[in-house]
Amino acid sequence: MTYCVGLRLEQGLVMAADSRTNAGVDYISSFSKLHVLQPSPDRIFVLLAAGSLATTQNVLNRISRDLDRAATESEEDGPAGVNLLTVDYLFEAAAYIGKLNLAVQDDYGPALRSSGVSAEATFILGGQIQGQPHGLYLIYPQGNAIAATAETPYLQIGESKFGKPVLDRFAVPNLPLEDGARLSLVSLDGTARSNLTVAPPFEVAIYPRDSLALSHRLKFAADAPELLALSHSWEAALARGFRELPRFAWEPLATGQSSPS
Amino acid sequence: MTYCVGLRLEQGLVMAADSRTNAGVDYISSFSKLHVLQPSPDRIFVLLAAGSLATTQNVLNRISRDLDRAATESEEDGPAGVNLLTVDYLFEAAAYIGKLNLAVQDDYGPALRSSGVSAEATFILGGQIQGQPHGLYLIYPQGNAIAATAETPYLQIGESKFGKPVLDRFAVPNLPLEDGARLSLVSLDGTARSNLTVAPPFEVAIYPRDSLALSHRLKFAADAPELLALSHSWEAALARGFRELPRFAWEPLATGQSSPS
Repeated sequence: MTYCVGLRLEQGLVMAADSRTNAGVDYISSFSKLHVLQPSPDRIFVLLAAGSLATTQNVLNRISRDLDRAATESEEDGPAGVNLLTVDYLFEAAAYIGKLNLAVQDDYGPALRSSGVSAEATFILGGQIQGQPHGLYLIYPQGNAIAATAETPYLQIGESKFGKPVLDRFAVPNLPLEDGARLSLVSLDGTARSNLTVAPPFEVAIYPRDSLALSHRLKFAADAPELLALSHSWEAALARGFRELPRFAWEPLATGQSSPS
Repeated sequence: MTYCVGLRLEQGLVMAADSRTNAGVDYISSFSKLHVLQPSPDRIFVLLAAGSLATTQNVLNRISRDLDRAATESEEDGPAGVNLLTVDYLFEAAAYIGKLNLAVQDDYGPALRSSGVSAEATFILGGQIQGQPHGLYLIYPQGNAIAATAETPYLQIGESKFGKPVLDRFAVPNLPLEDGARLSLVSLDGTARSNLTVAPPFEVAIYPRDSLALSHRLKFAADAPELLALSHSWEAALARGFRELPRFAWEPLATGQSSPS
């Protein structure tokens, strides 16, 4: 499994992913699921991937190949097909990746299904094309996509339920980018505690709107001091919050509060 | 959907459930999913139910009928079948309820499956039979069961993922019963925020070990002051914890901390 989360904030985008990949419980390995694509200075795309690793890698290879072919074709070859350089809007990039996703699944899906395995993959695409607003899309295995909005500024793929409550509480459009990065790490950290198939290293990309460049690309190993500090701080806050919950009416004293002797 | 959680603590049992039942999103109603059964003073059973409401109600009806029949049979009728009065161990009660569950599913499963609906139900059984330790079982739709242990003192059924991280953090065997009740309410409250099919009233049963009686049976409507106070206290603790998370190295100042002028 996998857990990826993207935040579309007023200040820009925060995109985060774990790195655990598993084919059964006895084949667990680590692969990056956060990919930054900048085919020209006027556009930047960040892609988070969940699902079949073979499908997501193949989709990324096709994206690169389409860009290579477009670059090597002469004007006389006529217009090349759609690629990340030809799209004018982020939703067109999402539709293009959705089509590649379907094409890869068409190639391998029948053989995989006969082995009882799914070829499906799901993506979160964040980014900006100069002159357009920054945006965030969830691309379904069927190729269609939805965008994050002010009402729901976050999108999740993979093992999303464990880390959703904290997003429902704190993911608001006017959240500063650094708070967004912390929020995504709290969401990832909580998920990794409850599900073995989600694990560090955690990767986080921070994109300030209209900058057309990431301000930060972070990678936290399980023992990274910054990740441990954040995890311990959150744990301590929850423990304190739990200790300080209001007592029931029949309880005379707060737990830990010693009775006067 | 539904969300129920049970805690097997050293001091006894805490069992909690939401009350929302839905057949599609346009037929939402409220049913209690927490049932207390005490067929004789030497034994007490608390049953939490998730899945097909028709199945869970039918299982409860059969439990009652088996007790009625046993009560009205004369000695000469020979030994009655298994019921909650004949079992000597809690695991036998779990096996008995598992068999009733399978029997109901056998009756209605084929017709339901042809309509694309599942007849499956899942139960959590907590309780104690005099002379035996208190215990907690999860009864699967297939009739088999697992028990909570010191390593994993909680069991969940229904929409369990949203409310699991907080249990993974705080559910330990030596938790006092009242803390267990608060923990189950925090877990329920967080789940209800993230999933429309889980909602108050929340019911909580507290069973002190070896007492063979519930010490408290609580029911909190959505606007119950005690539930609101707990929810707001937890929300405030999380918000404070989130604000106080350590800054990244490149951030000069804590959010909300004004720069010295």
